[in-house]
Formats: sequence, C-alpha cells, structure tokens
Amino acid sequence: MSSDHLSTTFAALADPTRRAILARLILGEASVTELAEPFAMSLPAVSKHLKVLEHAGLIARSREAQWRPCRLEAGPLKDAADWLEHYRRFWEQSLDRLAAYLPELQRKEKTHGRKK
Amino acid sequence: MSSDHLSTTFAALADPTRRAILARLILGEASVTELAEPFAMSLPAVSKHLKVLEHAGLIARSREAQWRPCRLEAGPLKDAADWLEHYRRFWEQSLDRLAAYLPELQRKEKTHGRKK
Repeated sequence: MSSDHLSTTFAALADPTRRAILARLILGEASVTELAEPFAMSLPAVSKHLKVLEHAGLIARSREAQWRPCRLEAGPLKDAADWLEHYRRFWEQSLDRLAAYLPELQRKEKTHGRKK
Repeated sequence: MSSDHLSTTFAALADPTRRAILARLILGEASVTELAEPFAMSLPAVSKHLKVLEHAGLIARSREAQWRPCRLEAGPLKDAADWLEHYRRFWEQSLDRLAAYLPELQRKEKTHGRKK
C-alpha cells in the first residue's frame, strides 16, 4: 500500500544518524565500517540503522563485492518529495504574504521615522 | 536543533491518518470533530494525532473562535522538502538512465521482431 510505503520512508528519515548516513552516500558507495566512522556508535548500532534504511528501500547493499558496499536508492525519496509537493503553495503563499506586507512595513517604518 | 526539528517533522508524517488530516486541511480550517469524521476513530484518538502535528508545528489551533479550528502550517514541510531536494539528482539520474537505455531496448525489440 502506497501509504504504508510513505510511512516507512518518513519513519526511516526521522532520525539524524540515518539522515547523516544518506548524506554520506551522496558521495558514493561506502562499507558499513566507513559509514560507522563519523559516529560514536558501535558497528551493531550502525547496522541496525542500515537495516531500517534497507527495509525502507533507501539503500541497497551489493551482494557481489566481499565488503558489500551500501549505495543510495532515491526512489522512496522521490515519492516523499512528490507528497510534499502538494503543500508547496502553502509555504509559497506564506512567503508571498510576507513579500506583500514588507513594503507596508517599510512605509510605516519611514513615516514613523519622519515623525520623530 | 535543526536535525531534531526535521526528525520531529518526519516522525509526524510517518502515519497515514496524520497525512490524511494534513490533506484535509489543504481545503481550509476544520474543527476536531470535522477532522475526525472520515476516520473510524474516537475523538481522543484523533486529538492525540492532532497533538503530534501541533507539536511538530504542522498545524496551529486558533485560540479565538470557540470551536478552535485547526489550520495547516507549511513551514516544517518546506524544511523537509528542502532536505529532500539534495537527493533530487539521484532520482533524476535514475530516470535519465532509463531514458538513455530505452532506445536500445526498442532497437533490440525491433531487431528481434524482424528476425522472426
């Protein structure tokens, strides 16, 4: 089910270590040891995070090389971005409202300034 | 901390009911009773989901009107979309690779077809 798929993706992204692992994989494939390096974490703790990411389809582990490198799989991230896209007009409206209000604020500021 | 903020946003989005509530709020403000209507859920269960969304800054509840309508707050969704944006080239590359491979597939299909 597409909703469960999205829930799994968002749950996997709801952790700073897992997001940092994905950010590292932007640079290219990496082994579990390499991925664990920047974190003050045991290998099993990192492996647990990798399992969550793998289950969510956000990473894949090569079965060919002995060191089984992890690589980024961006499909679920696209689905998450597509879902968020429906809300874009809301955050753009907020910025538009601010942009529309700004000249008025500046005018008030100037009028206030002249009165002093 | 910005990472905790993102974790809270993604965790709030990792539930189909909460995403459905946000989708309903695209149409405009709604009371808790109105938001609960489409779900086979008790009001307290819906209120619990609303608290998670409110804590994540994804909705705000008016303190003026007696019925305290909920409205969408898109700021955290923009932050989530901005984070995902870093990975766009990965899913676009996958589509590019598919687009590049497609003519070859079609050519093979035709060659195979002619041989028959």
